[in-house]
Amino acid sequence: MKITVVGAGNVGATCANCIAQKDLANELVLVDIKEGLAEGKALDMWETSPINYYDTRVKGVTNDYEATAGSEVVVITSGIPRKPGMSRADLIATNAGIVKSVTENVVKHSPDAIIIIVSNPLDVMTYAAYLTSKKASNKVFGMAGVLDTARYRSFLAEALDVSPKDIQALLMGGHGDTMVPLPRYTTVSGIPLKELIDDDKLEAIIERTKTGGGELVNLMGTSAWYAPGAAAAQMVEAIVRDQKRIFPVCAYLNGEYGMKDIYLGVPVKLGRNGIEEIIEVKLNEEEKALLDNSAEAVKSVMKVLDEMDMF
Amino acid sequence: MKITVVGAGNVGATCANCIAQKDLANELVLVDIKEGLAEGKALDMWETSPINYYDTRVKGVTNDYEATAGSEVVVITSGIPRKPGMSRADLIATNAGIVKSVTENVVKHSPDAIIIIVSNPLDVMTYAAYLTSKKASNKVFGMAGVLDTARYRSFLAEALDVSPKDIQALLMGGHGDTMVPLPRYTTVSGIPLKELIDDDKLEAIIERTKTGGGELVNLMGTSAWYAPGAAAAQMVEAIVRDQKRIFPVCAYLNGEYGMKDIYLGVPVKLGRNGIEEIIEVKLNEEEKALLDNSAEAVKSVMKVLDEMDMF
Amino acid sequence: MKITVVGAGNVGATCANCIAQKDLANELVLVDIKEGLAEGKALDMWETSPINYYDTRVKGVTNDYEATAGSEVVVITSGIPRKPGMSRADLIATNAGIVKSVTENVVKHSPDAIIIIVSNPLDVMTYAAYLTSKKASNKVFGMAGVLDTARYRSFLAEALDVSPKDIQALLMGGHGDTMVPLPRYTTVSGIPLKELIDDDKLEAIIERTKTGGGELVNLMGTSAWYAPGAAAAQMVEAIVRDQKRIFPVCAYLNGEYGMKDIYLGVPVKLGRNGIEEIIEVKLNEEEKALLDNSAEAVKSVMKVLDEMDMF
Amino acid sequence: MKITVVGAGNVGATCANCIAQKDLANELVLVDIKEGLAEGKALDMWETSPINYYDTRVKGVTNDYEATAGSEVVVITSGIPRKPGMSRADLIATNAGIVKSVTENVVKHSPDAIIIIVSNPLDVMTYAAYLTSKKASNKVFGMAGVLDTARYRSFLAEALDVSPKDIQALLMGGHGDTMVPLPRYTTVSGIPLKELIDDDKLEAIIERTKTGGGELVNLMGTSAWYAPGAAAAQMVEAIVRDQKRIFPVCAYLNGEYGMKDIYLGVPVKLGRNGIEEIIEVKLNEEEKALLDNSAEAVKSVMKVLDEMDMF
Repeated sequence: MKITVVGAGNVGATCANCIAQKDLANELVLVDIKEGLAEGKALDMWETSPINYYDTRVKGVTNDYEATAGSEVVVITSGIPRKPGMSRADLIATNAGIVKSVTENVVKHSPDAIIIIVSNPLDVMTYAAYLTSKKASNKVFGMAGVLDTARYRSFLAEALDVSPKDIQALLMGGHGDTMVPLPRYTTVSGIPLKELIDDDKLEAIIERTKTGGGELVNLMGTSAWYAPGAAAAQMVEAIVRDQKRIFPVCAYLNGEYGMKDIYLGVPVKLGRNGIEEIIEVKLNEEEKALLDNSAEAVKSVMKVLDEMDMF
Repeated sequence: MKITVVGAGNVGATCANCIAQKDLANELVLVDIKEGLAEGKALDMWETSPINYYDTRVKGVTNDYEATAGSEVVVITSGIPRKPGMSRADLIATNAGIVKSVTENVVKHSPDAIIIIVSNPLDVMTYAAYLTSKKASNKVFGMAGVLDTARYRSFLAEALDVSPKDIQALLMGGHGDTMVPLPRYTTVSGIPLKELIDDDKLEAIIERTKTGGGELVNLMGTSAWYAPGAAAAQMVEAIVRDQKRIFPVCAYLNGEYGMKDIYLGVPVKLGRNGIEEIIEVKLNEEEKALLDNSAEAVKSVMKVLDEMDMF
Repeated sequence: MKITVVGAGNVGATCANCIAQKDLANELVLVDIKEGLAEGKALDMWETSPINYYDTRVKGVTNDYEATAGSEVVVITSGIPRKPGMSRADLIATNAGIVKSVTENVVKHSPDAIIIIVSNPLDVMTYAAYLTSKKASNKVFGMAGVLDTARYRSFLAEALDVSPKDIQALLMGGHGDTMVPLPRYTTVSGIPLKELIDDDKLEAIIERTKTGGGELVNLMGTSAWYAPGAAAAQMVEAIVRDQKRIFPVCAYLNGEYGMKDIYLGVPVKLGRNGIEEIIEVKLNEEEKALLDNSAEAVKSVMKVLDEMDMF
Repeated sequence: MKITVVGAGNVGATCANCIAQKDLANELVLVDIKEGLAEGKALDMWETSPINYYDTRVKGVTNDYEATAGSEVVVITSGIPRKPGMSRADLIATNAGIVKSVTENVVKHSPDAIIIIVSNPLDVMTYAAYLTSKKASNKVFGMAGVLDTARYRSFLAEALDVSPKDIQALLMGGHGDTMVPLPRYTTVSGIPLKELIDDDKLEAIIERTKTGGGELVNLMGTSAWYAPGAAAAQMVEAIVRDQKRIFPVCAYLNGEYGMKDIYLGVPVKLGRNGIEEIIEVKLNEEEKALLDNSAEAVKSVMKVLDEMDMF
């Protein structure tokens, strides 16, 4: 098993480190465009192998996609953060260009790889990778929901003073403001959340989840990486070990939920073949309206990309 | 941290082995009345420590409770299986005598220990240990629901072809025929089970769960041990690591669910202080009736014990 | 990844359970000739998956080798224990017959499998499997040294009061009385053992290791299983995860150590291709003499098998 | 169990993350002087708990040592890196001041804590913490050898193409150029390294180990953190789980190896009481000379500190 992570920034490196610790692969390649960065981080990680008892050989390379040849799963985290004064369209154009170029390189050397996108803005970058790769849509998808639910679950664990292991949750829609929280689909060891928490507290936690990324930027002055990296690695694990896990994933819809030709956060079954099933839960009117609203927002960003005529 | 497991039969030994593997304790004592049995199994387990990288020193003793002194958690698995021709009252009398004697020895040397009962019949043996120990009821409880839900979840994982990690469930009531299944309290990554499985299949799985122990006796000619031992060890872990896990546990009710002076399977929060909270879920009429029925059955067995005037 | 364990007795079942816990395979098949036994144990194991968070689907079958088809690693634990009054030749004949039949079935359905023998008497049963399978010798080998060193290391950890993780050791030769201890090849975090323990204590531990199996039989009235099962599973892990681990393994020698056509315990590198290298350490005169002596003993048992003309 | 890590830079945060993942504590406090930094990183880590199934509550604080009260183990990583144009004496003065202030705060709120120093220059900062804390020397020690041996072992694993798990090694002396490599105390599954590698290759690996930190600075433009953080966390684990591990640790010598009143890297047994034993290995003349040389170098830096008259 060979896995590649593209982008050795905080999120990419953390993702690679989590993959190594789980001993999911024999060979793990970390790629970056900055000379020496991926080499250094990969070496630093490999030096923990005698301490943490794993065997994954981690290797870093600078822009050398031949070294990634034959990867079965590839995580793409490349992209720049939005800079002050930068318009959203500019950010999309820049990052779509990066994702396009990376995806081309990945596909050239690992034609059968499953591709997981972590680059931002997530939904549209996943779409860009899909267009570039010309792969079936079950092989190209994005990481957002695993992170969002992890945040939501950790907030609930703290509020209820229970183990984070015992909270299960589903969130849908785009990554960010239009995220669709589904309290009906949140349980604590099977007990509906609503029996255990009052509405005000829950409302506050949902709001906190929506802005969970921003909360960390405010504290640290930079984007988060521990949870984003761990979330992407958990998706890789589900695929490599064929776990058939049910996760919210940014997936291409082809009629599901009454939508077509859009990447949106929905629950899927993740296994050795990537997305093995898109699960259609029975949303009520209100939930459906929120999902439609979120889809609208995503569509409008996808349109910005379409109009760039890059693909 | 010192932990004791009493009874080196299949379930007790498996429980001890799981505890050792999780590295929950520095010292783990396995006690049995049969000369050499606990010593042998403990030694065999300790010999796996260089392979599985754990440090828990496992020690076996024959009936020597001084060696268990100062244990913080004690699991009691002692008891005989029901033999052909043996009446239920005879079985209760015999095992209650065993549990009484073991509990006295345990309490004498580890007065502050939290006691987990695994001996059968579970509800009434937990009651016997409670009466003997004169401890607060949050420190004496029984393992049944963790096992029953594990079976139920594993059957559902197979039926739905999803990861067992992603199924959460709650079962209540006594251990056995009167177990109260709660499909409303079963979810797959937060998705209500009813959305994912049809009623017939679910009904069959619930029935299979109720007779899960018998299914294994029929196959193997003896009672199961892997899941029972692992389930008891998971309760020990929740306590030792103060995890605040929400598990169905055979707990003493003092007004909760409108019941008093009875040990019954209900959801609790398990942490360093044992049962830190009994959680009252909002049962509907039908569910409440099933729970009352189960309580009746348990009460009738407890009455058999009360009439023996052993305590 | 599909793995099969043949023999659902204590050692086989323990080995299967360890493999499942490590999440090494998607599919794990446990085979036994006794109706229901493998089914029951496999089901009991699978029921621990929601507790121990693994995903390996464990399946038990009665003598159904079609269910094992396509396995990449197969562990064979089948065989009967020596009964009172049974001659060694009788035991060899009986178990060689069993191993032959099992190996034929295994090879028929999983022609590319790597085969690990655990059946006793170990060296000669490995030879029987090799002759039956007609495979390259790097794909057929036996488990003894991992168990023997684990016992030796656990005894040393106890004597020195240090972590079992920190003791490394090499033992060579046959499994049993003629085992060749190599105190020169035993270290504690790299420190030669001789600097840390006096000769008498070491001598006693070496003797105890040689009779480590017998010690447990005396205590329990039956053969050990926790350490033997864990040891075999560790070899499976080294192969499946291509770990390139250096273990003493019962391997076919073709000139190494000046010996030919014999299965003997020697250090090897274990990876995805089975035995990837036989490592020749520089024995001194005394050690060489002990190894020759051990080889003699093994040869004499192999001769018993050869004379049966079964292959 | 409560643990504190002071310094939320890369090394401190990585150390905290490793401690959380190992579920060593109920409560883990991360402290930094920079407003928001520890809060942000701690929150980001806690958000991985539902993904990685751990229960340690991670909390970040800005300079609030009351929040650390009652910690049983404290890791201090505070300090600034050497800046261009800064003399060694200036660096020592600055960091000793930081370590002194942090240690005072730590000791005030956690008088019984075991203190592990990671700040640089390591040997002298450990000495500074010792002088400040007025604790017994078995409770104040530094992390260097675990990292150095991890690097050395990972290089050897790569060169020999074997599992890093199977390489044990001992290094002694100060952290850096005067590190004392001990090839006689390096083995692969018990096999002396010298039997497996030729002298030139080994020499190159030893040199690479000595400058292992610099290699990573050259690649990344900043100091490493994955292995340093993991190494410190491994020491915490050995203490919390009372593992009695044999590690090279920067320890206070009081006659051992013929030295007094110096902090130097030597093998120790690490358990619940901190350094439970300093192990004196039998160095030969050459090795002894190297160790003396290293001690000289450390002494000269300690002298710089002594002359500052800060304690």
